[in-house]
Amino acid sequence: MNRIRILGIDTSLRSSGVAMIEVSGRLMRALAYGRIHNKPSLPHSGCLAAIHQEIDALITEFGPDEAVIEGAFFAKNVKTAMILGQARGAVLAACALRTLPVYEYSPRSIKQAVTGVGAARKEQVAKMVMQLLGLAEEPQEDAADALAAAICHAHQRGVPEALRSKPV
Amino acid sequence: MNRIRILGIDTSLRSSGVAMIEVSGRLMRALAYGRIHNKPSLPHSGCLAAIHQEIDALITEFGPDEAVIEGAFFAKNVKTAMILGQARGAVLAACALRTLPVYEYSPRSIKQAVTGVGAARKEQVAKMVMQLLGLAEEPQEDAADALAAAICHAHQRGVPEALRSKPV
Repeated sequence: MNRIRILGIDTSLRSSGVAMIEVSGRLMRALAYGRIHNKPSLPHSGCLAAIHQEIDALITEFGPDEAVIEGAFFAKNVKTAMILGQARGAVLAACALRTLPVYEYSPRSIKQAVTGVGAARKEQVAKMVMQLLGLAEEPQEDAADALAAAICHAHQRGVPEALRSKPV
Repeated sequence: MNRIRILGIDTSLRSSGVAMIEVSGRLMRALAYGRIHNKPSLPHSGCLAAIHQEIDALITEFGPDEAVIEGAFFAKNVKTAMILGQARGAVLAACALRTLPVYEYSPRSIKQAVTGVGAARKEQVAKMVMQLLGLAEEPQEDAADALAAAICHAHQRGVPEALRSKPV
């Protein structure tokens, strides 16, 4: 049975969710999940280095085949977009340096894939993620979003190659 | 005499200018400059990995004491801000992972420091950079901007500590 590992990332400067799932046919399980928490006092560059290091360490520990990020298509304004962009830059560089392809889905597609509803609330996503992966507890919000992104990408594997989203 | 090396970076996804200068008292000289050119066909993640690697290689080769980037305070729109943010994220993470402090100046301050005019045109910046560093030829535009950022930071060293800009 073709088994793959997917690294899901819900990128942000201060609290990125991260998740590693293993998919084997129709079976999915969570190997690890949590968040990269950067203190408010840490300068931007320190946050970005921490994000880079944590992603790199996860790649080393679990050897994922593919990574997924939530697409940031609707930043509120230029300043927010710049800060989120920086976090994404650290994540994408960390993955690309390890030749890990990164896929991107809109927040709506991710919610849709997990709950069946594109406009689902955060709590609904966390609850469904918990059920789908048989977790004992509801995961923290950012970790749940990272797990949801990984699950969304796992579903895409059933889609014919030509119709799948391309790596970023 | 206190001698320091400054890495200047004019960040962009496809063509970042990079420059290394050495400052010794009032003397400045360029050790290296050029640009990190990423082909239009390269995906974003590949560009970001290339930026990270080149910055890291420059740090290894020249052992700079401080780095400088041009502040991106006025991106045109959210999409541009996101893309520029990503490039900045790769640069900042690469520097921070090597514990290299990064300073930031507005485009206006950099032009002002080099030409005396905050609204100077690109060609004026390149010409002044060439004169100030005694270069044989006018540097390419992005490289000139990176050299200008480094020169701007070198000037700041004459400013009392408490009034200097803080690392990013």
